[in-house]
Amino acid sequence: MQPGLVSLAGGNPYLQSLPLDRLGATAAKIIAEHGLEALQYGGGQGTLELRTQICEVMAAEGILDADPDNVVITAGSQSAQDVAAKVFCNPGDVILLEDPTYVGALNTFEAYEVDVQPVSGDEHGIIPSLLRERIAALQAEGKRIKLLYTIPNFNNPSGVMLAPERRQEIVDICREANILVLEDNPYGLLKFDGVLPAPLRAANPEDVLYLGSFSKIFAPGLRIGWALVPAHLKQRYYLASEAVTLCPPTFNQLLVSDYLRNYNWLGQVATYRSLYRERCMALLEALDEFMPEGVSWTTPEGGFFVWLTLPEGIDTYPLLYKGIDAGVVFVPGAAFSAARGPSNKLRLAFSAVPPSELREGVRRLAPVLADAIGAN
Amino acid sequence: MQPGLVSLAGGNPYLQSLPLDRLGATAAKIIAEHGLEALQYGGGQGTLELRTQICEVMAAEGILDADPDNVVITAGSQSAQDVAAKVFCNPGDVILLEDPTYVGALNTFEAYEVDVQPVSGDEHGIIPSLLRERIAALQAEGKRIKLLYTIPNFNNPSGVMLAPERRQEIVDICREANILVLEDNPYGLLKFDGVLPAPLRAANPEDVLYLGSFSKIFAPGLRIGWALVPAHLKQRYYLASEAVTLCPPTFNQLLVSDYLRNYNWLGQVATYRSLYRERCMALLEALDEFMPEGVSWTTPEGGFFVWLTLPEGIDTYPLLYKGIDAGVVFVPGAAFSAARGPSNKLRLAFSAVPPSELREGVRRLAPVLADAIGAN
Repeated sequence: MQPGLVSLAGGNPYLQSLPLDRLGATAAKIIAEHGLEALQYGGGQGTLELRTQICEVMAAEGILDADPDNVVITAGSQSAQDVAAKVFCNPGDVILLEDPTYVGALNTFEAYEVDVQPVSGDEHGIIPSLLRERIAALQAEGKRIKLLYTIPNFNNPSGVMLAPERRQEIVDICREANILVLEDNPYGLLKFDGVLPAPLRAANPEDVLYLGSFSKIFAPGLRIGWALVPAHLKQRYYLASEAVTLCPPTFNQLLVSDYLRNYNWLGQVATYRSLYRERCMALLEALDEFMPEGVSWTTPEGGFFVWLTLPEGIDTYPLLYKGIDAGVVFVPGAAFSAARGPSNKLRLAFSAVPPSELREGVRRLAPVLADAIGAN
Repeated sequence: MQPGLVSLAGGNPYLQSLPLDRLGATAAKIIAEHGLEALQYGGGQGTLELRTQICEVMAAEGILDADPDNVVITAGSQSAQDVAAKVFCNPGDVILLEDPTYVGALNTFEAYEVDVQPVSGDEHGIIPSLLRERIAALQAEGKRIKLLYTIPNFNNPSGVMLAPERRQEIVDICREANILVLEDNPYGLLKFDGVLPAPLRAANPEDVLYLGSFSKIFAPGLRIGWALVPAHLKQRYYLASEAVTLCPPTFNQLLVSDYLRNYNWLGQVATYRSLYRERCMALLEALDEFMPEGVSWTTPEGGFFVWLTLPEGIDTYPLLYKGIDAGVVFVPGAAFSAARGPSNKLRLAFSAVPPSELREGVRRLAPVLADAIGAN
């Protein structure tokens, strides 16, 4: 094992498994043969070809009725979130979300001075009855709840998958309360085994605004994501997106289109699934082997992350520096919580790290956590 | 002359003069040799290499003291505008701007429910004394004025250049009134002849937020622009930009970096200058030859556009359809005005059209305008 730092912090996809030489040749061909299109301004909604192909990607994700006309391509799905908050929320409006949730979404929503409110969940995701109670309580306080932001498949950071049997009820509760569901599904195809659960959007075209991304199944450096928008909201959403970036990068769209057309992209997804499964298993085995009493963790069925819980009273933020001294990096839990207070949780990412290094990272982390538990 | 439609509408750069085969080979090399960086997430502010090179581009534009640490790379300068409005304005705040001005800026600002207020100008741009009066009048009404948005070099759509002798006074007026200047300078290097006037930012690092773009000097389809932010505002601006797009596209940044490092980019700018100069001259000559009595127009010293004024009482919007019937397209003036009412102006873009076609377009347009003037 090399002496360097083991980073279990960043949720980067493992790009080493992409065919880089061939992709380079494809990029060259696009510029040489279609450069006047690739390097020029394009339409604000994105190319029709890529929007049509995105509908095929969403079909693989479990959405069978998507219309390219309701797809808006964005500069990564981060930008699609930003536009959703901009279009649907005023300062003080409430966005409900899982706690923990994606730090980038918290940053986006807070920039609009939105009131982000956590909804309680368990190892199977949001609990419908508690969602209903939370909505009632907030409405009783006079709050205007506009969106439920959720990552139902392999939540970042928790790795939790929303149970299939809870899904329709959650949409129904939101529909009754006039709350739009903002479903963020970047990891949907990266379930390790078995059948993919249907997205919330699948059976609910008017109630769910669905966010997708090529960052986890292809290449985040291209910044190509999308929104599938309910038909009655599409025009507003599209114009707002156009006002933010004018158009998504044309060259990048053509490169993604070629990848979807001429490469075995589903084969690459299968490669990723088994790669990430192997890494997740290695991480979980190492946790079993090394973690001290008092630490518990999630058992993800897909995605990039495992979420650790330490005993109450321990703040994982100062442990970050002790971890670095011990040669391992993680992300403290506070970042992922709307409360942003001290947190006894932390996130480990297995996506970018080979199994032997994952094991070494956990081996280094264990005494740091054991010391903190002993001192607690 | 071909029988097809002559489009004088779109302000597209003329990419035919770029070395597409060589650019394709560069793109291939970047992915093959640096694919793990190019296709991966990058930093939210953009790469240090490109930010450093952008400081060299700005030096050519007349800004000699830019620090890469204060440069934030964005998904086109449209996104940089969007972030500026988001960070500095609340609903109801005033943004002062030229009338006419860039339609994309109007769309961006209106999305934030900002109160856009035009400032009077003439063929040499904003008139300082009138700016001072306008600010006083708005403040007397209790308005909070946050920004002056201006395109001092070859305004889109008017083609007007702000007179060098007015520039410092305009910044001084804004500084005294605590108004940040948002200087949008995509066409700055595209002055046809002679010395480039110094940007407003040049001598005023704390009072001007400067927006730059590779869309007009290289390739809009890459969507790479930037903001040079006053040091005391940089952190706020950067975090807001990161919340919108996470990071600018890495691959595109590496491609622009290689272009600036290994190509004769200033030679390409010189090629563009003389190309656009020739086209502008052809358009102006055709206007002299064909336009009926009662039509006047600007005489740009750079950029992409000429702005026509018809007699009062004529609305150019319905003339668009008559123009299309006659085989020529332009953009009616209403789009470029905060008032968005009927307009007796229209924009002609010469950037993407060869001289002979420009002449044919104007020849077709002339009787449409003559009829409208006759009927007025």
